[in-house]
Amino acid sequence: MNEQSLPSRTLERAVGELAKLPGIGRKSAIRLALHILAKGPEFGLSLAESIHSLATETKQCQRCHNISESDICQICADERRDSTRICVVEDVRDVLAIENTGQFKGYYHVLGGVINPMAGVGPQDLYVADLPERVEKTGCEEVIVALPATAEGDTTAFYVYKKLKHLPITISALARGVAIGEELEYADEITLGRSILNRVPFENSLKI
Amino acid sequence: MNEQSLPSRTLERAVGELAKLPGIGRKSAIRLALHILAKGPEFGLSLAESIHSLATETKQCQRCHNISESDICQICADERRDSTRICVVEDVRDVLAIENTGQFKGYYHVLGGVINPMAGVGPQDLYVADLPERVEKTGCEEVIVALPATAEGDTTAFYVYKKLKHLPITISALARGVAIGEELEYADEITLGRSILNRVPFENSLKI
Repeated sequence: MNEQSLPSRTLERAVGELAKLPGIGRKSAIRLALHILAKGPEFGLSLAESIHSLATETKQCQRCHNISESDICQICADERRDSTRICVVEDVRDVLAIENTGQFKGYYHVLGGVINPMAGVGPQDLYVADLPERVEKTGCEEVIVALPATAEGDTTAFYVYKKLKHLPITISALARGVAIGEELEYADEITLGRSILNRVPFENSLKI
Repeated sequence: MNEQSLPSRTLERAVGELAKLPGIGRKSAIRLALHILAKGPEFGLSLAESIHSLATETKQCQRCHNISESDICQICADERRDSTRICVVEDVRDVLAIENTGQFKGYYHVLGGVINPMAGVGPQDLYVADLPERVEKTGCEEVIVALPATAEGDTTAFYVYKKLKHLPITISALARGVAIGEELEYADEITLGRSILNRVPFENSLKI
């Protein structure tokens, strides 16, 4: 099935829109559109409505740029959290992932991406500019830079570091090392090398 | 990232709806929803609108049950096609695939599925009942059953055959055999065996 025109302009348009989503090509888009059709109008209407709401009603937390129902997100509104720590992450999924570990009780700062010149994303496209002021005003003592272990993540981490290093705070990064459950022989050299350089007191390794 | 609740009900709802699509799990749905958010309101509105139209405006051809802009689809409305042949297929994608070959100039009959008791799809859920009458009324001389080479496809093909065998027409099935470009040693035994039993005059194999 090549680029044959579909039997209906409505179908063609929906396939075109669905195929703009990441990881969905034209064939998958046709499969999704036919599934929506096969499931009947209610199914499609409900999906369309939920995407409509997503596009128009979702807000961004004015403090941390996390997705939110209101001006300040649930996490920023929770005063029981540790206001001395801010964790800088790429996007909302990272907030979810870190919340899931149960190991961090501070606040977040969502950059909304990483610096990636190839994709046309520069520092001005990220929420970095307001971070130093936020750190100063909130009595933050430590910023944990929790960005992806990629070239783009490292570049962004260094940019964030430069913006903060004049402040009297600790700036830390996620530990890189051999993953729990991983065999040493399958770890790549850089990760294994880093995990030797950054070795920890044995008692620490007993903590979950 | 497990089943942690998302930071917004709107997001949660969109993720829930997207995850109902085939082949899209919760993680993919979150990725799609965040992409829609990141692309800005216009992107999401356009997608929502196209799905809304798909769900409410698309019609089905009253003759062949193909997706259509009007009561009768483009193919059925084309009087230059060969009215002596009807090709029975599972769904719209098969119409596109066969049209793409350029080898069939007759009309189609889209069943809208195959019999699959495990998925609760019985003959009454398919557009089979109107096929015998359509064949009789239109002067059709041959019905080509072009259903998938699966257990469900074979069951459905046999059901269609039983519904038509009292009529004075030829009922044929797609040739099963070694695919063009395939090495014999990699073809499965049943396909290879079938391609020996149903061998064709050598001159026929020279046609595309």
